[in-house]
Amino acid sequence: MADALQALDFEGWACPVPLRDSPTIVMGHGGGGQLSAELVQHLFVPAFGNQAEAGTGDSAIFELGGARLAFSTDTFVVRPLFFPGGSIGHLAVNGTVNDLAMSGAVPSHLSCGFILEEGTDLAVVGRVAQDMGAAAREAGVRIVTGDTKVVDAGHGDQIYVNTAGVGLIPDGVDIRPQRAAVGDVIIVSGSIGVHGIAIMSVREGLEFGTEIRTDSAALHPLVAAMLAVTSDVHTLRDPTRGGLATSLNEIAAAAGVGIQLVEKSIPVPAEVGNACALLGLDPMYVANEGKLVAFVPRERAEAVLAAMRAHPLGTGAAVIGECVDEHHGMVVARTTFGGTRVVDTPLGEQLPRIC
Amino acid sequence: MADALQALDFEGWACPVPLRDSPTIVMGHGGGGQLSAELVQHLFVPAFGNQAEAGTGDSAIFELGGARLAFSTDTFVVRPLFFPGGSIGHLAVNGTVNDLAMSGAVPSHLSCGFILEEGTDLAVVGRVAQDMGAAAREAGVRIVTGDTKVVDAGHGDQIYVNTAGVGLIPDGVDIRPQRAAVGDVIIVSGSIGVHGIAIMSVREGLEFGTEIRTDSAALHPLVAAMLAVTSDVHTLRDPTRGGLATSLNEIAAAAGVGIQLVEKSIPVPAEVGNACALLGLDPMYVANEGKLVAFVPRERAEAVLAAMRAHPLGTGAAVIGECVDEHHGMVVARTTFGGTRVVDTPLGEQLPRIC
Repeated sequence: MADALQALDFEGWACPVPLRDSPTIVMGHGGGGQLSAELVQHLFVPAFGNQAEAGTGDSAIFELGGARLAFSTDTFVVRPLFFPGGSIGHLAVNGTVNDLAMSGAVPSHLSCGFILEEGTDLAVVGRVAQDMGAAAREAGVRIVTGDTKVVDAGHGDQIYVNTAGVGLIPDGVDIRPQRAAVGDVIIVSGSIGVHGIAIMSVREGLEFGTEIRTDSAALHPLVAAMLAVTSDVHTLRDPTRGGLATSLNEIAAAAGVGIQLVEKSIPVPAEVGNACALLGLDPMYVANEGKLVAFVPRERAEAVLAAMRAHPLGTGAAVIGECVDEHHGMVVARTTFGGTRVVDTPLGEQLPRIC
Repeated sequence: MADALQALDFEGWACPVPLRDSPTIVMGHGGGGQLSAELVQHLFVPAFGNQAEAGTGDSAIFELGGARLAFSTDTFVVRPLFFPGGSIGHLAVNGTVNDLAMSGAVPSHLSCGFILEEGTDLAVVGRVAQDMGAAAREAGVRIVTGDTKVVDAGHGDQIYVNTAGVGLIPDGVDIRPQRAAVGDVIIVSGSIGVHGIAIMSVREGLEFGTEIRTDSAALHPLVAAMLAVTSDVHTLRDPTRGGLATSLNEIAAAAGVGIQLVEKSIPVPAEVGNACALLGLDPMYVANEGKLVAFVPRERAEAVLAAMRAHPLGTGAAVIGECVDEHHGMVVARTTFGGTRVVDTPLGEQLPRIC
């Protein structure tokens, strides 16, 4: 046995599934999967006390001075900073805007906090800031307050960006993971896996025949188009870290419903499918930007789908499944071959630092 | 000449005044002084476009759904994480709470964004989270939303924390740097320089006879006590990075008034004075936490001062100067020896990474 072990060269190995009992932080704690959830549930929530909201929504929702507000934050540590179709600057704006939009809020004001590494080219900082400004203008939000810290060389990675945002929730709108209900139709706004593969392709210098560009976009105009059909949208989520699989599992758990997917109805572009096959990834777990998944009462599903398809951000919208009164809290997919498989929450993340 | 240069050993030198024309980020860009201001004015504001508010206030102020809100963010990269009297966790809560309080808002909801370095002890993360929870309970605010990212070992420094916060501004309160007016009395809530020296003492392993503990605290209860005397407080500021000197310069510039200080009336504890003498620092430029500087109309100054001294957070409150109709935009101090000196904005920061 000792010989057999010595024959293996562990040098340079990376563990895609971080050890669960590690006493230290591993990459998977930032992956948005089970390890991230455990960190929140077992460390942050107890520490913050009963003041914290454990909620699995993308935003906190509360009333202040008679206004019903959504409030959310996201930190961006993506590498590389610039990639086909976007940059950390676009993500930093659209990511928080979308978190707010997933509660039905109209995003309006953003904060930004920069951690700059000593020695970073000012031109890089400028380019990121330009992209943030452009994304904010396109999304119709204002960056109204900010903070900049500098850390010594070797204690950062050029630029990390945190954004937080607030938005007003229109009267009569109540969109939460807990509202997903048996019978709801599940709609995705377009093809999945694109953002993660776009980052991966430049990071690893891979070429997949056609260039895969990130689809990062601010989604609140699409949400507004959906709410124009019915204010009774139950649940929205933008499936970023951990991909569609993680988002669906979180919603199934929060609402206590079962989710039944039809695998072949999930839109995966051929380039993404090929890249995933090459890299040994499952597109269901690859991060998205600029896509949402919606849970809509059956009787309004057709009208909502039509409204989504009529909107530039939802032309590829498709029904991918439904909520069922079985296997509560679980996501199950009917495979192309007629079988079923459990679509579990990943432990960590297949691709770290892509958002 | 060449010989003379070679005789100097530059190894290990640090430049306290970073080069102005550097094409890269230097530590001073995060110091809260002129370099920070230039980065904001010449890079971020133009990039974010006319959407950005250049405002020199600690918070953005806007109306949303009929509520007048303050919104602010701060990132904490302090080293070491734990120091006498507090930790990065306390700072992360109190820092943003105080930014909100300086607009007269009642801080209510916080977000938090963590950047954890791979390999960081989970116990360290837990201790920081515990401190955040304790500080939030003490301040009466709730941490309602958060995000965690993990970066590879060697690209962080255990834990960086961003917080953003919102609060409601009471009717009739309008506290802004621009409102400082000729004749205003300038009051500081207690002794200055304590926080910066507390951090410095542990970082450098220095002992100054007595232990200097950070005075980090949430200041909104003190602000409430002041507003109970008069809602007509003109300007408030917590003089963190860059110290009292930088805050006063920003206010003088924003309001277009001159500031005249009486040097001997500025409360500097003997331990801080001694430590500063030893380290070659000026206490006016050392960061504070848990202290505020207020600009109050002359006719209400005595009553406000009395209310501050009656509050636990303001027992050491003192009048340190006034706003004058001379040397507009400048801060001038009458020295102990009867002369005057200009108290300028520092270029960078005397002590990096103390908040």
